[in-house]
Amino acid sequence: MSDAIKVGLLGCGTVGTGILRILSENRADIVARLGADIEVVKILVRDLDKARDPAVPEGLLTTNPGDVLAAGPDVLVEVLGGYEPARTLLLAGLEAGCHIVTANKALLARHGAEIFRAADVAAKDVIFEASVGGGIPIIRTLREGLAADRIDSIHAIINGTSNYMLTGMSQRAASYADVLGEAQARGYAEADPTMDVGGFDAAQKLSILISVSFGVDIPFDEITTEGIDRLTPQDFAFARQFGYAVKPLAVAKAHLPKDPTAADAKIEIEARVAPHLIPLDAMLAHTNGVFNAVRVHSHALGPVLFYGQGAGMMPTAAAVVSDIIEVGRNIQRGTSGRLPHLAFHKELVRPMGLRPSAESECPFYLRFTVRDEPGVIAQLSTLLGAHGISIRRMVQDQSEPGKPVPVVLLTHLAREGSVKAALAGIDGLPFVTSPTCYLRVEDIH
Amino acid sequence: MSDAIKVGLLGCGTVGTGILRILSENRADIVARLGADIEVVKILVRDLDKARDPAVPEGLLTTNPGDVLAAGPDVLVEVLGGYEPARTLLLAGLEAGCHIVTANKALLARHGAEIFRAADVAAKDVIFEASVGGGIPIIRTLREGLAADRIDSIHAIINGTSNYMLTGMSQRAASYADVLGEAQARGYAEADPTMDVGGFDAAQKLSILISVSFGVDIPFDEITTEGIDRLTPQDFAFARQFGYAVKPLAVAKAHLPKDPTAADAKIEIEARVAPHLIPLDAMLAHTNGVFNAVRVHSHALGPVLFYGQGAGMMPTAAAVVSDIIEVGRNIQRGTSGRLPHLAFHKELVRPMGLRPSAESECPFYLRFTVRDEPGVIAQLSTLLGAHGISIRRMVQDQSEPGKPVPVVLLTHLAREGSVKAALAGIDGLPFVTSPTCYLRVEDIH
Repeated sequence: MSDAIKVGLLGCGTVGTGILRILSENRADIVARLGADIEVVKILVRDLDKARDPAVPEGLLTTNPGDVLAAGPDVLVEVLGGYEPARTLLLAGLEAGCHIVTANKALLARHGAEIFRAADVAAKDVIFEASVGGGIPIIRTLREGLAADRIDSIHAIINGTSNYMLTGMSQRAASYADVLGEAQARGYAEADPTMDVGGFDAAQKLSILISVSFGVDIPFDEITTEGIDRLTPQDFAFARQFGYAVKPLAVAKAHLPKDPTAADAKIEIEARVAPHLIPLDAMLAHTNGVFNAVRVHSHALGPVLFYGQGAGMMPTAAAVVSDIIEVGRNIQRGTSGRLPHLAFHKELVRPMGLRPSAESECPFYLRFTVRDEPGVIAQLSTLLGAHGISIRRMVQDQSEPGKPVPVVLLTHLAREGSVKAALAGIDGLPFVTSPTCYLRVEDIH
Repeated sequence: MSDAIKVGLLGCGTVGTGILRILSENRADIVARLGADIEVVKILVRDLDKARDPAVPEGLLTTNPGDVLAAGPDVLVEVLGGYEPARTLLLAGLEAGCHIVTANKALLARHGAEIFRAADVAAKDVIFEASVGGGIPIIRTLREGLAADRIDSIHAIINGTSNYMLTGMSQRAASYADVLGEAQARGYAEADPTMDVGGFDAAQKLSILISVSFGVDIPFDEITTEGIDRLTPQDFAFARQFGYAVKPLAVAKAHLPKDPTAADAKIEIEARVAPHLIPLDAMLAHTNGVFNAVRVHSHALGPVLFYGQGAGMMPTAAAVVSDIIEVGRNIQRGTSGRLPHLAFHKELVRPMGLRPSAESECPFYLRFTVRDEPGVIAQLSTLLGAHGISIRRMVQDQSEPGKPVPVVLLTHLAREGSVKAALAGIDGLPFVTSPTCYLRVEDIH
């Protein structure tokens, strides 16, 4: 057997404890794969006196970050979460000659560039499989498994909280407030659920997926992000009538320049996080509860889909330990930097940038709430038509006398800017009683 | 940019042509990822005069294998298929200092051990992603992405021909003969379809999946293999009544020893290829047509599923080119053998062997064909009961006077040996007019 790979563990919460459990429970398999043991040499915690899982070796705990580096780890594994002290500790670790494994998507989204630069200077690896999709090895797949292909688009369910909530609204016609309460009761949603239900968590993950798929950095706060809180159970019922499910998607698409020979020709990346309509028979539509799935469409391969548990103690910890094994294999061969951290040699990537969201095109689902008066539908279609938006299908619910009635339609392909302009006009009309709900449609299979 | 990675291509049929197309069509992305060009230096073909795709550089063609090695390739890419001359050429390539990329599952299934040994002596890599699941990067995922976890089971649709045919039988109630004719007309099935419909192609692939999942070599001809030819459209209808789809599965499960401290304790691998019943709402049940999917269940991660096109020119070629990129990255770093060819250090794997199929246990679907006489069902259940087999659910079709009638049932968990013994007895009874159709049930989700 080769020498043990020495790990300094920064953080011992849920994921940290999961890592220690996996190292113990799967030891025989890990040793047979790596040809060496993985030995945890020190564990940084905030509080020594907390009750802990039996898998946690109490004698290795410390509250002093200096003790971790002093123990001489080969790999620093960061599962603290948040920006600090994670950032400072990882930079210090790189300087001390450690490779890095992290599950911290927020840190990478904000300080990734700085950390990757430091890793290049130190000639060390930074691996971060657990930052997106928990146990689904999607980062590794995009960096290596699909390396030969030109990726066209990504459609991903990468926020388990939102997917759990929309699954409940769809299957039980529950209200947004009810499913949020349930998700909080089960520990799937935080007391302040904004990061999840507002799409910001998914936007951070999408920013990482875009980096390793297309080779361009799109800061997560430049990604169009729309929450799931405007959905009502009736949207799921109407969508189903049209043959669609409603799913919380992170979407990215690469648009080649119309004239590739133009001096300012660049590839435009369309990117957003929002609830979408997708066909009921799409594989993604069968991804329910807290499960995640990432669908990648590429030039030669066509569609591929990767499905699994996107969060939770053990799935996330398994991804971290697989990363430790990867680094361990590099250490054994005395190599590092086999591929760029974000999969691309930046200087060789073609010019690329974010497409303004107003210029995105897709079919739209529109739910108007109107007074049931003669001529209303004619006026709606005239106004939509004036913005170049044509109607593909429409349903109108039974009206109760005196009550506002929903008018729901699917459009043909429409420019997002035109749809928003049309809705701004329509929502000011006297017979429109509530703001119109719009959702984008992605006809993936 | 680094030096180009030089490739000698052995074979220029469908997949070989796909490789040349991808190298040309995706060149910008490949260069940006690898930091170097991939340059094909020589192409071995059987016939110089054939009409070829414009992506094939005619000047590089040769019919002399010696010309390929003389061109000094870094990587030898084998897409000839079959055993010879593939085996001899790869062994010569390793001796000449080439890394190997191959898509040849039959070759690996028969001569893998010899080729991997030669690669170890030469300190070169042998990579074979395209040998299983075409464009789905499942080998890489099992070797690296899931390296931290103890794999419990694999349920895989890895033969597109069978899945295309069973999808047709399920969706259109077509007969076996009709869907076979269609598959042949579309080029999805060979004139002699035995390898596909008999399950032998899937068994070769399953043997490779078992190697990289569990660390043990199970020769493909020791895997229980049952064809899809005994299915009738009514089996799909009955299965649906019970809430199941019928799918062509390759299954492998690891059973830990009951007493791990016993001197002869070993892990038993249950393995088979056969049509199975799986729940209608399982992700695998939505894998239709020529698509493949591999579901892996592991200790910490739970279920994960990988879905995509399992065959075809471009998906298979994309997998080969991703392998070339992986080898290229190793060449750039002067490394090789980062992990064992079949993912495990054999000397560290716990004792393991194939479980005799008679000892497998699962629920069974049984379709009896009987004369509609009083007491028939009582006799069937008595005989099953005598073999320790109990009935979970039963349906009996409307009978037409004088015609044999199907009696269909699902059993509780039953030992395969007991089921076969019971059927041997039952099929000899006077009121049983045709051999009983049995299918195994896998209650995966």
